[in-house]
Amino acid sequence: MVQDNLACVLHKEYDLRLEHKPMPEPQEGQVLLEMGCVGICGSDVHYYEHGRIADYIVTKPMIIGHEASGTVVKVGKGVKNLKPGDRVAIEPGVPCRCCSFCKEGRYNLCPDVIFCATPPHDGNLSRYYTHDADFCYKLPDHLTLEEGALLEPLAVGVHACKRSGVGLGTTVLVLSAGPIGLVTILAAKAYGARVICVSRSLTRLNVAKACGADIVIQVRNYQQEEVELIKKIHNALGRAPQVTIDCTGTENCLTLGMNVTRVGGKLMLVGMGPQTVSVPLVNACAKEIDILSCFRYVNDYPAALEMVASGKCPVTKLITHNFQLEEAVDAFKTASKKSDDTIKIMIHCRRG
Amino acid sequence: MVQDNLACVLHKEYDLRLEHKPMPEPQEGQVLLEMGCVGICGSDVHYYEHGRIADYIVTKPMIIGHEASGTVVKVGKGVKNLKPGDRVAIEPGVPCRCCSFCKEGRYNLCPDVIFCATPPHDGNLSRYYTHDADFCYKLPDHLTLEEGALLEPLAVGVHACKRSGVGLGTTVLVLSAGPIGLVTILAAKAYGARVICVSRSLTRLNVAKACGADIVIQVRNYQQEEVELIKKIHNALGRAPQVTIDCTGTENCLTLGMNVTRVGGKLMLVGMGPQTVSVPLVNACAKEIDILSCFRYVNDYPAALEMVASGKCPVTKLITHNFQLEEAVDAFKTASKKSDDTIKIMIHCRRG
Amino acid sequence: MVQDNLACVLHKEYDLRLEHKPMPEPQEGQVLLEMGCVGICGSDVHYYEHGRIADYIVTKPMIIGHEASGTVVKVGKGVKNLKPGDRVAIEPGVPCRCCSFCKEGRYNLCPDVIFCATPPHDGNLSRYYTHDADFCYKLPDHLTLEEGALLEPLAVGVHACKRSGVGLGTTVLVLSAGPIGLVTILAAKAYGARVICVSRSLTRLNVAKACGADIVIQVRNYQQEEVELIKKIHNALGRAPQVTIDCTGTENCLTLGMNVTRVGGKLMLVGMGPQTVSVPLVNACAKEIDILSCFRYVNDYPAALEMVASGKCPVTKLITHNFQLEEAVDAFKTASKKSDDTIKIMIHCRRG
Amino acid sequence: MVQDNLACVLHKEYDLRLEHKPMPEPQEGQVLLEMGCVGICGSDVHYYEHGRIADYIVTKPMIIGHEASGTVVKVGKGVKNLKPGDRVAIEPGVPCRCCSFCKEGRYNLCPDVIFCATPPHDGNLSRYYTHDADFCYKLPDHLTLEEGALLEPLAVGVHACKRSGVGLGTTVLVLSAGPIGLVTILAAKAYGARVICVSRSLTRLNVAKACGADIVIQVRNYQQEEVELIKKIHNALGRAPQVTIDCTGTENCLTLGMNVTRVGGKLMLVGMGPQTVSVPLVNACAKEIDILSCFRYVNDYPAALEMVASGKCPVTKLITHNFQLEEAVDAFKTASKKSDDTIKIMIHCRRG
Repeated sequence: MVQDNLACVLHKEYDLRLEHKPMPEPQEGQVLLEMGCVGICGSDVHYYEHGRIADYIVTKPMIIGHEASGTVVKVGKGVKNLKPGDRVAIEPGVPCRCCSFCKEGRYNLCPDVIFCATPPHDGNLSRYYTHDADFCYKLPDHLTLEEGALLEPLAVGVHACKRSGVGLGTTVLVLSAGPIGLVTILAAKAYGARVICVSRSLTRLNVAKACGADIVIQVRNYQQEEVELIKKIHNALGRAPQVTIDCTGTENCLTLGMNVTRVGGKLMLVGMGPQTVSVPLVNACAKEIDILSCFRYVNDYPAALEMVASGKCPVTKLITHNFQLEEAVDAFKTASKKSDDTIKIMIHCRRG
Repeated sequence: MVQDNLACVLHKEYDLRLEHKPMPEPQEGQVLLEMGCVGICGSDVHYYEHGRIADYIVTKPMIIGHEASGTVVKVGKGVKNLKPGDRVAIEPGVPCRCCSFCKEGRYNLCPDVIFCATPPHDGNLSRYYTHDADFCYKLPDHLTLEEGALLEPLAVGVHACKRSGVGLGTTVLVLSAGPIGLVTILAAKAYGARVICVSRSLTRLNVAKACGADIVIQVRNYQQEEVELIKKIHNALGRAPQVTIDCTGTENCLTLGMNVTRVGGKLMLVGMGPQTVSVPLVNACAKEIDILSCFRYVNDYPAALEMVASGKCPVTKLITHNFQLEEAVDAFKTASKKSDDTIKIMIHCRRG
Repeated sequence: MVQDNLACVLHKEYDLRLEHKPMPEPQEGQVLLEMGCVGICGSDVHYYEHGRIADYIVTKPMIIGHEASGTVVKVGKGVKNLKPGDRVAIEPGVPCRCCSFCKEGRYNLCPDVIFCATPPHDGNLSRYYTHDADFCYKLPDHLTLEEGALLEPLAVGVHACKRSGVGLGTTVLVLSAGPIGLVTILAAKAYGARVICVSRSLTRLNVAKACGADIVIQVRNYQQEEVELIKKIHNALGRAPQVTIDCTGTENCLTLGMNVTRVGGKLMLVGMGPQTVSVPLVNACAKEIDILSCFRYVNDYPAALEMVASGKCPVTKLITHNFQLEEAVDAFKTASKKSDDTIKIMIHCRRG
Repeated sequence: MVQDNLACVLHKEYDLRLEHKPMPEPQEGQVLLEMGCVGICGSDVHYYEHGRIADYIVTKPMIIGHEASGTVVKVGKGVKNLKPGDRVAIEPGVPCRCCSFCKEGRYNLCPDVIFCATPPHDGNLSRYYTHDADFCYKLPDHLTLEEGALLEPLAVGVHACKRSGVGLGTTVLVLSAGPIGLVTILAAKAYGARVICVSRSLTRLNVAKACGADIVIQVRNYQQEEVELIKKIHNALGRAPQVTIDCTGTENCLTLGMNVTRVGGKLMLVGMGPQTVSVPLVNACAKEIDILSCFRYVNDYPAALEMVASGKCPVTKLITHNFQLEEAVDAFKTASKKSDDTIKIMIHCRRG
């Protein structure tokens, strides 16, 4: 094996380069992975375009990428759950394992988590990469490396649904049919929910349909059409939705969520919006609506894996573009155009 | 018994009259009560001053009052849990018992609830009153009718604490030391929490102390002092509060709640504020904080009763003024002055 | 309409008669139903054979039947949710609506519940029947009256799964492939679980497969084969099941449940067994396994209805025999034979 | 400092010796502790008398002791939460941090946990001892090392109450007034429960009273007096207990628990009994009672610490005997007599 560790490195905004990095060595409890597929996430594009997200700033070159799968090529000391040849989905955040959040089963909130491609930590859009073995999930033989990489966004949908108590027969309104909206639809359907999706894009609503949304509604302007939209949603479901999952973070959608959701229901915030929003919180209060939020995912990979393994989850409908690792810069350029036709771009890391 | 049913009737804003009403007769499942004590609530004062709350409008004369206790004088057909002579606390809302909310144990959300002194339904600031027997809770001998009436606001505190998961050792920040802030402190302490209370009023913070608050902090201007206040709170608790219970509904306190609460914590909204608020929701999302709301109470009277019966809940510290039913108009005038020294006004309905 | 109210009346053990009963009249909040389908339940057969279940004794003639659907022909005063012509599934227990269980959302535990065909209350295997409208669930047009009647056993499966926290990807072991085992499988699959079913009957295991069980295992003797069986189950799932749902109540299956279930898992008891059982409780304790029980169902009809309405729940696979109301006695004779080939007997009440 | 590391070593049943052990060195993430107090637990006595508990067998000399506190004398690399001089309570089980139980917040179920004085792992009844820093909880200045050591049994009580949902006003029946019964009473009171305790020992019931039990009942023979006892308990509480916590594991108490507990209630099993018990499980099922179990504790030290720090938890009432480390063998001899007057024996490890 010629150990060529090509990696896609972000130096600063719009400065993404393919570079040869040293071959990493798995430490105790780690595995060395030959990377399979890496999807491009909205946050990757944000780093590409701005060099930062909030206080996370790219101050030194950082390998990008965190929605990934790979194949074990070597195991470090003490690794028992994996062996060379195993194909795995990679959960990109490894927590400290010692703080109260880690001990209480909420390791996604660990303040010392090392998360792929969140500065200053490298991501895994590269030929080889090492990761803690217990954050790698073995793929059954019938799953592809593409599906393995897609477990990452899918886990976001699972986390949102699990935290908001989506279950058998729950009526769920999903705001947006972007990548996160779509994985939320996939997860809500797997939980047995009845799902309605609202979006401005007809193209994406068609994908929402393909992902299992029972009802889709196109909207042009959330604010102007709010009254009519609420009526449409209530009519379509026969009542107000029990759970609204907002994947936009925008003031208009948050307002809609507070106004459209059923008495006693839940509004789950997945999308992150502007620093301050003007919203009718009092309307939520008068209905005893809980406004929940979710940060990444925690203990959600097993359910996401089970979903895809069951054969009932058409997650690959999200993939609209494919690139080779060598074409990674082009892939980011394509992503940066933010076309409605571009949902999930998948980068293939194995040498052809 | 000369059946004098004197009642305190709100005709329109600032038009409150003492009138003689017909003697009510208990229907099946009901009891006739000789009223004991009725506390004045902020919502009573709001109806007194404005003749309405949101869409609930006093369009015809309405007996005011809903924080009440009384003594059973007659039982209707089928009543088994009570007998004449029993002293009871009255839970003022009687739901439809048939809708999905009622069946699921969330009868506080019943759209057809009949709630005392919420138009068009009469309240119980009167000499006699009938109520469904199963919404009357028998007081043990060692409790007073004043304490019985105070179960109503106390149930609000219980509901807020129960819904936000306050338990043994939870660190709780209570914003405001008004009546609702104080019952929340009483409830949080009964649940075993460590409680810090912030208020502008030193007078009320002293009552908060008497109610069991472990730490009290006076603030002059929430917005200007926010940074310093957060530091003070974190220092006092040794860390950020796990649960913040806002009893104000104001933009400044909501903002503080989102910024001060611990990662993974909860912000419970008890106070109702203006129609729209500008708040940093994204800060709550980044910390996976859940923003919960609570509407009245549901199945909370038993716990509130237990609290007071245990002898460990100094709820009577809230009573600052006492009036006779005949002086009810003066009582409302006093309440309407909204002095810091006026916390809970208790009206005694039994003929002297 | 000639009002012929033929009814199937149990006088004492093995004394079941078809009789003409007076036409009932719907009271306030009730509907008069022309009965559609009524399934025969194991408890019906037990009353037929023994004239009693525990302390519930048939001391006077009682109309049998409680797994039922019908069509509204008349509505009583105050009924808003239904109108003549609506086809409904009937939830057979109407609680008191006033006790603490009813108020807390656990009306299945109401001590004063009136439950169809539980002495001294009549059931609904008859031509006409009245029931509280809020315990009737309107069927969508595409559902049949057979499916409507099957919501009753399905609700048992929903309740068992909901109480034991079955969700997306949960590994569930169902002990028995009798009617309750099969509805439990259907519900577990709707919740997204991976299901393994064990039974002595190959015939019934085939139905279990048709109901969605992922894996089925035949056993001859639970006690003798326990060690081997545990190994088979663990191998088939790749690990111990997180939830075991026992639908037998037998000592051998309870013992298996305590021994086979995963550390930290749940053992749900649906079947009722003998008065005393000898079981290795300490094994459950050492694994922090919770042994849960479920009694009938509560707020489970909406989910059961949603399951069937989704088109993904093959509940009609349970029906092995069909009879007309006039043949009801024969239907019970068939049921009483307890053949493996007899799963659910459906009686059709409408005049041909 | 002369580094004398005297330790109390169990060689085999009834063969306990004081020996000088090498001074341990704290590894990364660990602290070296000068041991303060170590309480004797029933399991320690069991190892002393039998050389084993179930499959955990003392095959080589093992330092005994796990209910402990100490003072930090040295910190290993990377330790941030503690510094020399800090006095701490020691949570005796350190899990693997990597398995699904650890990640899901149930590290008490970790199959690879290293637990003090569970073969083959040494305990901490010694002069010096090293432990992972994140499983050491700093004691506030006003707590003693005795109280620190008592957090361990107290955490068992907290875990039992937390898992069984004990809260404000819950009626709790505790079976037994031994050490675990008593810590359960302390915890239940801290959670706001009303507590009734049943025991055969009047001596211990007096301690139960001192620990806050609201009602105590002496029983001579559980089986013979069951009917009468149930009546007494129901009368004393005014109804059946919502939660019964059995700390005995005996067939008679388990049977009582299933029969006495309220419909819809919970029976928590803390005590471990014989391999097989004959119990009326069907009675629990008919009442939808959940039979829960608890294994050690998980994330319960903070609440236990808060309880004692509040000054309201008279946990030191449990201490009936005190010994110096040099007298440890005598301490075990005393414990082995199992007198009703012997509740908690505390061994002081610091050189006088």
